[in-house]
Amino acid sequence: MDSGTKTGRRRRGLSVDEYAAGVVAGDRTVLARAITLVESSRPEHREQAQELLVRILPKTGNAHRIGVTGVPGVGKSTFVETMGCRLADGDHRVAVLAVDPSSSVTGGSILGDKTRMARLATHPAAFVRPSPSGTNLGGVARKTREAMLLCEAAGFDVILVETVGVGQAEVVVAEMVDFVLLLLLPSGGDELQGIKRGILEWIDLVAINKADGDRLMAAREARSQYAAALRFVRSASPDWRPPVLTVSALEDEGLSELWQQVEEHHRRLTASGALATRRREQQRRWMWALIEDELLGSFRRHPAVVERLESLEDDVVAGRTTAALAARRLLDAAKS
Amino acid sequence: MDSGTKTGRRRRGLSVDEYAAGVVAGDRTVLARAITLVESSRPEHREQAQELLVRILPKTGNAHRIGVTGVPGVGKSTFVETMGCRLADGDHRVAVLAVDPSSSVTGGSILGDKTRMARLATHPAAFVRPSPSGTNLGGVARKTREAMLLCEAAGFDVILVETVGVGQAEVVVAEMVDFVLLLLLPSGGDELQGIKRGILEWIDLVAINKADGDRLMAAREARSQYAAALRFVRSASPDWRPPVLTVSALEDEGLSELWQQVEEHHRRLTASGALATRRREQQRRWMWALIEDELLGSFRRHPAVVERLESLEDDVVAGRTTAALAARRLLDAAKS
Repeated sequence: MDSGTKTGRRRRGLSVDEYAAGVVAGDRTVLARAITLVESSRPEHREQAQELLVRILPKTGNAHRIGVTGVPGVGKSTFVETMGCRLADGDHRVAVLAVDPSSSVTGGSILGDKTRMARLATHPAAFVRPSPSGTNLGGVARKTREAMLLCEAAGFDVILVETVGVGQAEVVVAEMVDFVLLLLLPSGGDELQGIKRGILEWIDLVAINKADGDRLMAAREARSQYAAALRFVRSASPDWRPPVLTVSALEDEGLSELWQQVEEHHRRLTASGALATRRREQQRRWMWALIEDELLGSFRRHPAVVERLESLEDDVVAGRTTAALAARRLLDAAKS
Repeated sequence: MDSGTKTGRRRRGLSVDEYAAGVVAGDRTVLARAITLVESSRPEHREQAQELLVRILPKTGNAHRIGVTGVPGVGKSTFVETMGCRLADGDHRVAVLAVDPSSSVTGGSILGDKTRMARLATHPAAFVRPSPSGTNLGGVARKTREAMLLCEAAGFDVILVETVGVGQAEVVVAEMVDFVLLLLLPSGGDELQGIKRGILEWIDLVAINKADGDRLMAAREARSQYAAALRFVRSASPDWRPPVLTVSALEDEGLSELWQQVEEHHRRLTASGALATRRREQQRRWMWALIEDELLGSFRRHPAVVERLESLEDDVVAGRTTAALAARRLLDAAKS
């Protein structure tokens, strides 16, 4: 009877109270299940998830939120593994999350294969969570944001958010973290790996990775070139000018200096109030992004819009009608 | 009786037929009045304007659409004046438009004072139009876009769109032109005048202006530094790598080379089809931007949203509720 009840209870999931208590107590099994809850798109789960998130909100916000970006092959996973272990071996508790909207297409995910972070994934002071599935970037971002809050409530004080390193995922990650770290290769192929358009304005630190062995000289050269280039770009905050460092995640070189920069950034922007402002603005923009998504989404799904959209868009693109007129026709259609 | 009819007719404005015929014939009085029509926000004017625009659309698209941006004081007006006269003295017909969402606040406008472009404003092959009034960037952009179409239909084959050089106006201009020209000062004060975040990805050419007199050396130095910096930024198109030139608008130095670059860009992107794609995508995004504006605008104006917005936004920003929950509440309110 008892065990029957337990099984039944397990199947129907935990209550919000149970989730909240488990997360705040740092119970990683409950944390993992709570993240699964916020990742679900079923309406009753969404409702329960929001209730849970509101409950744990007062316990959030105490972590360094760090985004790690860079092209595929730059060594993001190795960096996260080495950096994560270094911090977890110290007095930090480290959660690793990811934003990879392609993961459900490729069938894998950047963090899905935990063997790539073998040591960190089993570290008692660390928690590694694969990227939520989904090809919709907004949806993936929402899940990662909410997972981050749960990790913070569970006592993790460093959140590393890895990105897939292509497309708009970087900007989405930059919008949820305090600090964006861009990893670059020490190669001379700067045209191929050049700083991504659109991400430049979000960068808080550039690290030339793989600065080891016979790549050391190239890395130092790249460092001074990037430092010169960054001088011409206005930084996101008057309190911070993005430094350019060389590191080797593989050989654990330069990561201590890098972390000092993260802490210095945190100190400086906390003192000036810029960090609090950044987070507040992120929240505000996030709320509006959700509203926009929903308004545009239901507009696009409206049968009258679905019916007319393709031909009107064709007319606009072919110069047969103006954008304003086509927009007006679609808006009128959606009202009917 | 006859003159009475004429006066009456003048007051009620021209018909769409009269506007279209006058614009296409290159009648600059009618062109000016047609631009005034598209600038009006009165519903009956908007309707007539859209009718007119659809009518003249087949005559549009044959101009070089060039955005001119840079911080205040960099010499944009002098550049436009010198460049415009040079082209108009040749075999081009040049229209100068502007996007300055601040103009109605300051009471002036960047092109309002035509004495700044004294020669160009009276040149028979040129047409200089002050920035439309309005503090709403979207509204100002809409008016300038539509004015551009009218100028093209009137036979102008070069459209120079000047921006105020601050804020998001640059991006808005980049979204309506084929070519974005960034003017920079030859000063060493790169931190102050640095390439604006967000605009970098849109630039097709950088010109260090005021490369004259004792600033010549500094300009050359700046040129090589910016050229080095730009190497690290992926260009907007694989067909084009933004060149960095030195010019002096005041002494009419380097403008011929600059124009060669504009033409080369046009040739290359026309040949590859990238220009047509760019324009098509601009149109598509513009249609969606208008739809988004309208959806968000009516959402924000909804009485139930107005009533709850401030306190919910405060709750989100203060961490008392989640962005998702606040968004949901507002969306539900707007439905009621």
